[in-house]
Amino acid sequence: MSDLLIRNIRPMGGAAADLLIRDGRIAAIGAALSATGVAVEDGQGAIAIPTLVDAHTHLDKTTWGMGWYKGRKGGSLQDLIDNERNARIPLGLDVHRQSMRHALQLIANGTGHIRSHVDVDHDHKLTLLEGKLRTREALRGAVDIQIVAFPQSGLMIRPGVYDLLDEALAMGADVVGGLDPSSMDRDPKASLDAIFRLAEKHGKPIDIHLHEYGELGAFTLEEIIARTRAHGMQGKVGVSHCFCLGAPNPHRVGPLMEQVAREDIRIFTTGHPSAEVPSLQDMRAAGIKVGLGCDGIRDTWGPWGQPDMLHRARIVGMKNRMRRDDELELLLDAASRGGAEAMGIEARGLVVGAAGDLTLVAGETLAHAVVEEAPRPLVVKGGRVVARNGSLALAGITMP
Amino acid sequence: MSDLLIRNIRPMGGAAADLLIRDGRIAAIGAALSATGVAVEDGQGAIAIPTLVDAHTHLDKTTWGMGWYKGRKGGSLQDLIDNERNARIPLGLDVHRQSMRHALQLIANGTGHIRSHVDVDHDHKLTLLEGKLRTREALRGAVDIQIVAFPQSGLMIRPGVYDLLDEALAMGADVVGGLDPSSMDRDPKASLDAIFRLAEKHGKPIDIHLHEYGELGAFTLEEIIARTRAHGMQGKVGVSHCFCLGAPNPHRVGPLMEQVAREDIRIFTTGHPSAEVPSLQDMRAAGIKVGLGCDGIRDTWGPWGQPDMLHRARIVGMKNRMRRDDELELLLDAASRGGAEAMGIEARGLVVGAAGDLTLVAGETLAHAVVEEAPRPLVVKGGRVVARNGSLALAGITMP
Ligand SMILES: [Zn+2]
Ligand SMILES: [Zn+2]
Repeated sequence: MSDLLIRNIRPMGGAAADLLIRDGRIAAIGAALSATGVAVEDGQGAIAIPTLVDAHTHLDKTTWGMGWYKGRKGGSLQDLIDNERNARIPLGLDVHRQSMRHALQLIANGTGHIRSHVDVDHDHKLTLLEGKLRTREALRGAVDIQIVAFPQSGLMIRPGVYDLLDEALAMGADVVGGLDPSSMDRDPKASLDAIFRLAEKHGKPIDIHLHEYGELGAFTLEEIIARTRAHGMQGKVGVSHCFCLGAPNPHRVGPLMEQVAREDIRIFTTGHPSAEVPSLQDMRAAGIKVGLGCDGIRDTWGPWGQPDMLHRARIVGMKNRMRRDDELELLLDAASRGGAEAMGIEARGLVVGAAGDLTLVAGETLAHAVVEEAPRPLVVKGGRVVARNGSLALAGITMP
Repeated sequence: MSDLLIRNIRPMGGAAADLLIRDGRIAAIGAALSATGVAVEDGQGAIAIPTLVDAHTHLDKTTWGMGWYKGRKGGSLQDLIDNERNARIPLGLDVHRQSMRHALQLIANGTGHIRSHVDVDHDHKLTLLEGKLRTREALRGAVDIQIVAFPQSGLMIRPGVYDLLDEALAMGADVVGGLDPSSMDRDPKASLDAIFRLAEKHGKPIDIHLHEYGELGAFTLEEIIARTRAHGMQGKVGVSHCFCLGAPNPHRVGPLMEQVAREDIRIFTTGHPSAEVPSLQDMRAAGIKVGLGCDGIRDTWGPWGQPDMLHRARIVGMKNRMRRDDELELLLDAASRGGAEAMGIEARGLVVGAAGDLTLVAGETLAHAVVEEAPRPLVVKGGRVVARNGSLALAGITMP
């Protein structure tokens, strides 16, 4: 937790001001602030926003910085899962090294919070979690990482994975994960009961991957809504992707969104370019807290993506047909403050008393900053400069 | 038309070789070529591909390099058209300057051929065409530009636009454009008859924007197919977007694609992120010649896009759920050689006798080159170096 005075920035695109951080929190915002014995940065008039937030990614999967991976497959979700599980060891995919590469790129691009799912399965047991726990520790103070214990290869269809998840949560995973309780686990009641039991036992929140489309997804979502209410877990349950809320039927989707908002279930979307995704504008209008995420980046599943939340925001914005400045401002909020809020983090924006986490962005206005492809001029976490002009500024840490 | 020897490149990702261009055409590809009195470039082992091709864009629309435009609107296609037509003059959108900016960025990013639509309407008459003809002339030898005379505000609903299109074609526009003969012009028979009459009179090809969805689009497409056959214009008719071929009904879409292939109608797609778009893989499998395009870049319609065909290829690839290396290779072909072929340009790839147009790309393999975000190391047009490491190398031409 550091002190820092940043001169000449435009908080949220407003008038130029100085911003003072003391003990890691914003202590003052105003004209010509003075402070003695404090490091000073020149913001050069750039717009400042709260740090970006990657609310859905998989730091244990990327091949970033390794040779080009030629073995990608088509086929079903199950084929892709099996291909990855079998490829990890022959590929030499070291989870600590790869998650460091991935997270450091996110930091360099202005990210202050990450929620990352980690595979827990029979083949790898808890080794992937161990690698990612080391990364979380190594980057403490530079970025906050929430780890979701994620049964990527299934829970009910893989006896023993329940106990592994239990152990993962005891070891330090922050969130209970799940995957397609109906289409993958083939037993939605048992799968969801197990997930909520683990959450209750460990006092931890939930984040379930739900790829199921249409009525099947809506059915599973209704079961998640019912359990959230029954367990009093409002504000503690998240659903990732939730493609069923992207169905083109407002009479079905509208009431579902209302129920999701009522139980304060958080939705995490990646704006998946080849799927029906829930409308960001509609979810926000319904009062749902939404986070955006890059999801997998250049992994065994697919070649696409960049470890940059503004890159992802552009994908989400194009997908949602956002054009107007007010829409781009909503998008930027979802990629930063709103994503943190959805992850259960205090997220009041750039106000006195808030965490001293911010990033400068290129562009004349907030809307312009979303579409402009340019490095972040300065990234600050808890009052400490962690990146400058797209390059890391972390003493003692180098890109592996 | 120049001579150039490029040492140590990997044509199409194959073994390292030298490539000699004489009088603007590829004269030899092989090991340790020698040539006297010829400029020499070191390719440093990079992959070489034919230049990229932007087969659908609007060079007269971009605000690139101007201040951030705050006036974007939501609403219908008609609202967006009207907003643009009314904004051009107050905005100070100088078409020659803006089309130079746009085209020069495309060149710097490895583009050798551009097909650009230009608005022809009552308000601007032929002034936008004049600005773009100047740009085409200024960039002759650095990039080839095909100009489509495009009735952006309608043809049948705007009496007099027919005569303006006629004049535009006489002035040097290369292609007859059209826009939604049913949903916009409200008279598909008269609209298509007019377009084909202009094409016949001037001996020029056709490229029709067809946004119409579902059965309406399929109906209009059937009318285009019938006229292509009746006029013997196989290979001379293009349809841009053609969203109706993106309908999720293979029993309707499959036979339509067969007819499009049989009449050798070319399809130009932008992989529109928020629309149903025709499958690139399915179109190519049906034997359709397909070009890709960036469409509008940061214009009054929308904020999105980059003047870079690899950026666009990634959008098309994500939209089409392409993952495997062979799919990425197909994508890269459509963004380069295949797009030129669809535009009616000789496009044999990097072989002896072909045009000396190529770009080097970053990446270990062709597939990797599609997803890697990096400048093009070298861009060559007709044996002349036109860009290096993402920056222009055109004597006497600077970015306006
Ligand atoms: Zn995921
Ligand atoms: Zn267009």
